[in-house]
Amino acid sequence: MNTNRINSWLPSANIAGCEFPLANLPYAVFSCGNEKHYIGVGIGDSIVNLCALEEAGLFDELDLCLRDAVKQQALNQLMGLGHSHWTALRLRLVELLSKNTYQNQVEPCLIPQVDVSFHLPCQIGDYTDFYTSVHHATRVGSLFRPDNPLLPNYKWIPIGYHGRSSSIRISGEAFKRPVGQLKAPDAECPELGLCKRLDYELELGIFIGKGSQLGTPVSMVDAEQHVFGVSMFNDWSARDIQAWEYQPLGPFLSKNFFSSLSPWIVPMEALAPYRCDWTRDSADPQPLDYLDSKVNRDKGAIDIKLEVWIETAKMRADNQPAERLSKSNFKESYWTIAQMVTHHTVNGCDLKPGDLLGSGTQSGPNHEESGSLLELTAGGKAPITLSNGEQRSFVEDGDRIILKGYCGDDQLKIGLGQVDNLVLSGSKPE
Amino acid sequence: MNTNRINSWLPSANIAGCEFPLANLPYAVFSCGNEKHYIGVGIGDSIVNLCALEEAGLFDELDLCLRDAVKQQALNQLMGLGHSHWTALRLRLVELLSKNTYQNQVEPCLIPQVDVSFHLPCQIGDYTDFYTSVHHATRVGSLFRPDNPLLPNYKWIPIGYHGRSSSIRISGEAFKRPVGQLKAPDAECPELGLCKRLDYELELGIFIGKGSQLGTPVSMVDAEQHVFGVSMFNDWSARDIQAWEYQPLGPFLSKNFFSSLSPWIVPMEALAPYRCDWTRDSADPQPLDYLDSKVNRDKGAIDIKLEVWIETAKMRADNQPAERLSKSNFKESYWTIAQMVTHHTVNGCDLKPGDLLGSGTQSGPNHEESGSLLELTAGGKAPITLSNGEQRSFVEDGDRIILKGYCGDDQLKIGLGQVDNLVLSGSKPE
Repeated sequence: MNTNRINSWLPSANIAGCEFPLANLPYAVFSCGNEKHYIGVGIGDSIVNLCALEEAGLFDELDLCLRDAVKQQALNQLMGLGHSHWTALRLRLVELLSKNTYQNQVEPCLIPQVDVSFHLPCQIGDYTDFYTSVHHATRVGSLFRPDNPLLPNYKWIPIGYHGRSSSIRISGEAFKRPVGQLKAPDAECPELGLCKRLDYELELGIFIGKGSQLGTPVSMVDAEQHVFGVSMFNDWSARDIQAWEYQPLGPFLSKNFFSSLSPWIVPMEALAPYRCDWTRDSADPQPLDYLDSKVNRDKGAIDIKLEVWIETAKMRADNQPAERLSKSNFKESYWTIAQMVTHHTVNGCDLKPGDLLGSGTQSGPNHEESGSLLELTAGGKAPITLSNGEQRSFVEDGDRIILKGYCGDDQLKIGLGQVDNLVLSGSKPE
Repeated sequence: MNTNRINSWLPSANIAGCEFPLANLPYAVFSCGNEKHYIGVGIGDSIVNLCALEEAGLFDELDLCLRDAVKQQALNQLMGLGHSHWTALRLRLVELLSKNTYQNQVEPCLIPQVDVSFHLPCQIGDYTDFYTSVHHATRVGSLFRPDNPLLPNYKWIPIGYHGRSSSIRISGEAFKRPVGQLKAPDAECPELGLCKRLDYELELGIFIGKGSQLGTPVSMVDAEQHVFGVSMFNDWSARDIQAWEYQPLGPFLSKNFFSSLSPWIVPMEALAPYRCDWTRDSADPQPLDYLDSKVNRDKGAIDIKLEVWIETAKMRADNQPAERLSKSNFKESYWTIAQMVTHHTVNGCDLKPGDLLGSGTQSGPNHEESGSLLELTAGGKAPITLSNGEQRSFVEDGDRIILKGYCGDDQLKIGLGQVDNLVLSGSKPE
């Protein structure tokens, strides 16, 4: 169904450039002043409460499992139902939000987005972070190995590693600069101190819907049947803690002090019009058979525009607006979502509804399209100058970092929302 | 309370060398032929059903939160209550299982261990694997860097990395040899194939009880207040998958195809008599202040004896018993449990009830005390010969690997139970 040009009876959903037109319908979990959480779907400037729709009898024709799932306080149960159920729910929502005959019944279930609090959309069992931008991997690698920036496995394997679920939070939460063991290159011993090289990472968050069984790989053909949708994700990183701790087993405390998601999960169906071909340079290794498929080559990539913005304490004090630091696009990713899912399960690893895959920092081919300050400032050696004259090597206390993502253009936009965090000063443990 | 010499009215608990005397009382989650799971405590050859004790009115004097927690189907709620509640429950269980006056009431709540099925004891939110054996790190490092086996950070940081929770299973489950990208050193390209270098890792599993808040480090003084107990843990590893994938972000598919726990969680109180001093060689760096405490130096280590056994398909066919491959002791660990917890949270990372910390492979100072085949066979170059003449470089299809752990001696033993898995042949995806 092409919903791109269908209008809603809710005027705010039809305004050019609105992030939440009828063609989007992203999921979120929210509350309104009390403890109860609800599943909602974004439309225009509002969110529609799915539990309220069900209680109003508007889902009576849907399967019982779906009617039960929308009443939960987290998305895991709906995620686990699988693709055909997600489609059935989406079709019904389009009907309810487009046909004037439903307006009177649906309106009481709408709440202005500004009046709700957002929560994590699901219990995230496991979080895996990938490293799918070859431009990011090359620029970061060149800081450490100028002659040989990319490791030999990069073009063969969608590199990934396990992350920490417990410290993932929703957009809007502030956090304290972390403490950790730091060792300056010329110091004899490490010491405990406040992170001096705090950085953001511009990532897409990919949510697993239907799970898979331990011992049963998911093929490329089936991979996207297991994907519920995408969010924006900031994989906050302490570069100095990472440099000292990460050999030989990878990042640990440099990554698990705080990570953050946008409140919205945009369904894969809403992204369908923005799919594009995924190509592999003929000079590069072609993917091994298990990571290759015609569908993936034809439509594996997705044109999702990504941006990083900063608002410093001085900008706030001076009433200046936030400033864009960089932009890039997920279509540049060296590996696709299907390849991440298939690679993750080729050894039999199981996936569960609500698991999160980070795409890894999405940087474009040009330096100014870098998705981290580590790249933009060449490891801190070339600070950037903001329009108000302030300089940044890494993120400073009082900085707000805002990641944004969307498909489309100023006429029809599919927004992924934003992930927005303020960095507070930290304190060293006694 | 010293329960070491108190006898139970259950004769099997008092037999010399029994793994589950009254001084142990390890927790497990079990079922008896239907879907309902129960929390139980091991005693002698039996398990006592805590929900049944509560329903019989035998916990009426305990706090309501505790009485509710023991009726759950997983341990997370009990874990989250904290130390004083765990102690109160333990004291009551000792009373019920030692005083003859309770025998008639408690006996209907006892089930022979051989008649139950065990399940994961809790929902494991996050699993972190440490690398605390300096002997393991040195021997593994020497395979790759003979002149400089230990990396510079090792003696300063309790090295850890995030693992996968979803693929952790309970002892007794068989699993298929995993598939993955492999690249022989002399091959031009990698290929998808069955793992040829499958290995076990002899680890302790450490369960977090009471959680901690994001942004709030846990000090060394408080660290063990957050620890519920310990299990045996096999961190199954595909060495050839790991060698090709792990740069630069650490192990991924080489570790997440299957991991396995013993069914029992031994409470920290049961281990108290086996605490011993933790020393740091004067030639080594002393721990940074945040990782140091007098209690840790006096009693931070624990004398837990660890063993690896193998039963090959041929042994089974020939009716030969399993054979011990190695033994080691957790007291040799370079870092203690308190140091793992404190380091994990120093950056503000939060812990949740039921989180699992793997100790990392526990190898002793001597080669024959190696906790992995990678070490025992020098990376496969020096196969070991079993008593029936079979050789092993790595684990083969049909091998059963059994890890065992216990404190004490043949008179009074505190068993951690065993983790026992059979390796099945794998198949390459089409």
